[in-house]
Amino acid sequence: MRSISINELQNLTEKILQKIGYPAPQAEITAKVLVQADARGIPSHGVARLPFYRNNIKGGFALPAREPETVFETPLSVVVDGNHGIGPYIAHKTMGICLEKAKRSGAAFGSVRNSNHFGIAGYWAELAARENMLGMAFTNTRKCGIATYGRERLLGTNPIAFAFPTSEGEPFLLDMATTTVAHGKIEVYHRRNKEMPLGWAVDEKGKGTTDAGYLEKLFATHDSHGAQLFLGGEGELLGGHKGYGLGLMVELLSSALSMGRWSKHTFEGEGSGITHFLGVISLDLFGDGDEIRRHASLILDEIRKSEKAEGQKRIYVHGEKEAENIKRSRQEGIFIDDATWVLLESFSSEFGLQLPE
Amino acid sequence: MRSISINELQNLTEKILQKIGYPAPQAEITAKVLVQADARGIPSHGVARLPFYRNNIKGGFALPAREPETVFETPLSVVVDGNHGIGPYIAHKTMGICLEKAKRSGAAFGSVRNSNHFGIAGYWAELAARENMLGMAFTNTRKCGIATYGRERLLGTNPIAFAFPTSEGEPFLLDMATTTVAHGKIEVYHRRNKEMPLGWAVDEKGKGTTDAGYLEKLFATHDSHGAQLFLGGEGELLGGHKGYGLGLMVELLSSALSMGRWSKHTFEGEGSGITHFLGVISLDLFGDGDEIRRHASLILDEIRKSEKAEGQKRIYVHGEKEAENIKRSRQEGIFIDDATWVLLESFSSEFGLQLPE
Repeated sequence: MRSISINELQNLTEKILQKIGYPAPQAEITAKVLVQADARGIPSHGVARLPFYRNNIKGGFALPAREPETVFETPLSVVVDGNHGIGPYIAHKTMGICLEKAKRSGAAFGSVRNSNHFGIAGYWAELAARENMLGMAFTNTRKCGIATYGRERLLGTNPIAFAFPTSEGEPFLLDMATTTVAHGKIEVYHRRNKEMPLGWAVDEKGKGTTDAGYLEKLFATHDSHGAQLFLGGEGELLGGHKGYGLGLMVELLSSALSMGRWSKHTFEGEGSGITHFLGVISLDLFGDGDEIRRHASLILDEIRKSEKAEGQKRIYVHGEKEAENIKRSRQEGIFIDDATWVLLESFSSEFGLQLPE
Repeated sequence: MRSISINELQNLTEKILQKIGYPAPQAEITAKVLVQADARGIPSHGVARLPFYRNNIKGGFALPAREPETVFETPLSVVVDGNHGIGPYIAHKTMGICLEKAKRSGAAFGSVRNSNHFGIAGYWAELAARENMLGMAFTNTRKCGIATYGRERLLGTNPIAFAFPTSEGEPFLLDMATTTVAHGKIEVYHRRNKEMPLGWAVDEKGKGTTDAGYLEKLFATHDSHGAQLFLGGEGELLGGHKGYGLGLMVELLSSALSMGRWSKHTFEGEGSGITHFLGVISLDLFGDGDEIRRHASLILDEIRKSEKAEGQKRIYVHGEKEAENIKRSRQEGIFIDDATWVLLESFSSEFGLQLPE
């Protein structure tokens, strides 16, 4: 475990991305999103993903110099064709347009096709909350998830991010894969040779499995049987059909609205074809924004102060843990695990870059 | 089990509601929402709830003749104070305003405070899809649900309804409590003396319980310990913190935006103070609505036709089962179980109404 300052990690990541083939502006925003994930304590979506971003370019799924294009717009909306460029760069441009439009119109929505992985969804939703507006960010992904009673990988992990501004500085920020867990968690269980709990995944017959290694093998083949389950797990008893419904809602908002590829058909043909949906709604549409933010803070505060279950010390509201991690990262630097440090060393020596002390 | 035509059940329910104290327009829309629930195969939200609606009036929580009032509006939004009137009547007026505004502006949002139970959330979302727009309906409820690692009932069952129009006639329609199950399901387990699965509820210490009778006892007291769990169940292993986050998102959208009461404080003071959030977004904001609807239908069709898990015959998309039930209800009438029939008989004899054959 080492610690590195946010700025140092940002600089290093930007340089690595440029060596990989990213133009400077694309490298800057991508590094920002990756480093933010590490600073928030979500290392599964941080700089440890650099090899994935590199492979995306090697495989021709991301074409780093491609500029996104507005193909349709109204005062409330923009439809963007990412032209298979860099996901965070495309999301940044689209969210920028949405924020501008929402400031004038009160609300705006961005529908994006032919993009790539845009990093943590929460990053984009939070941008709106920082301007005292509601923020939403949805995306489909490569195929990972299954329909209730199915056996084929069809849907993405299809995250939902939603931000609500408060008067405390830190917004309420929900950022969740609609599958039971993000795929990275299954990789960790596999590496540690741990059994997954039932409710995370099914095998090629569509039956619940606890074998993370076996699932990873299925995911590595071109065959599409075996998949992650959505929130609520297998069948309907614990609400698996609801999680599947949320995943499908995200799919339709992302891929149907944008006339893009749905998760089943990502990584077929040119690029990966990932699609997003972004939304911004101003609090001014509902009266006095300051009053609304104070009311939200009071609600969240009552929840935090409510009685804890036996043996529990704290009740969190969403975004709180991450905000505390960011604060700590600013003060003490970002903690980087050994495997990720080795990765950064290997990139640095390959590209002749200086690794910070 | 008896069968009764949709029209007959509508007429009878309207008359009963009028005898209970509803003015004619309030009775008409409330009956429509209740009968729609029965026709869709969701009897837990159908006419079997009439005693609940009556108690709401007896307890002073609903003041049936009160008219809702617009307290703030913009071309994209309306904030409505329901003045503790009838929930479906308030939701109907608000959704009507949103649909009108969205036809002119492209999108519109309705924020409602001081309302009452508005019936199935899906009814309101679907109204938008019938006009080729995206529909959303969220509401808080009486307190039922718990924060992850808490032990106090704080949040509602806080349903999410989302409708996406398709080219097949029937929209994609997700309509789900964000708790693992709607409260009615626990009542059914209690009546049948069945053990609940772990993941539905916790006891007064915040520990998982399978005892539906015990939970119902806790719910019947004024003490607020013991509660339903959100989708994903207890703790974080199966994503309980995500379900809690979705419930909290619905809570903020409903109660914080409207400056109304949050679930913890419903049924305190005048009325119940239930709050809603409604949304309508036109497909025209994203290009050619017909093309988008066809694209959505193709996605849903690929999912339906995908391979089934071993032993499974069919994969549904959301709203499909309910649409088939409505079709059957139109042809064969609505099936009413014996307990509900006894209820209708008792109302009819009390109020001197004619029960259909």
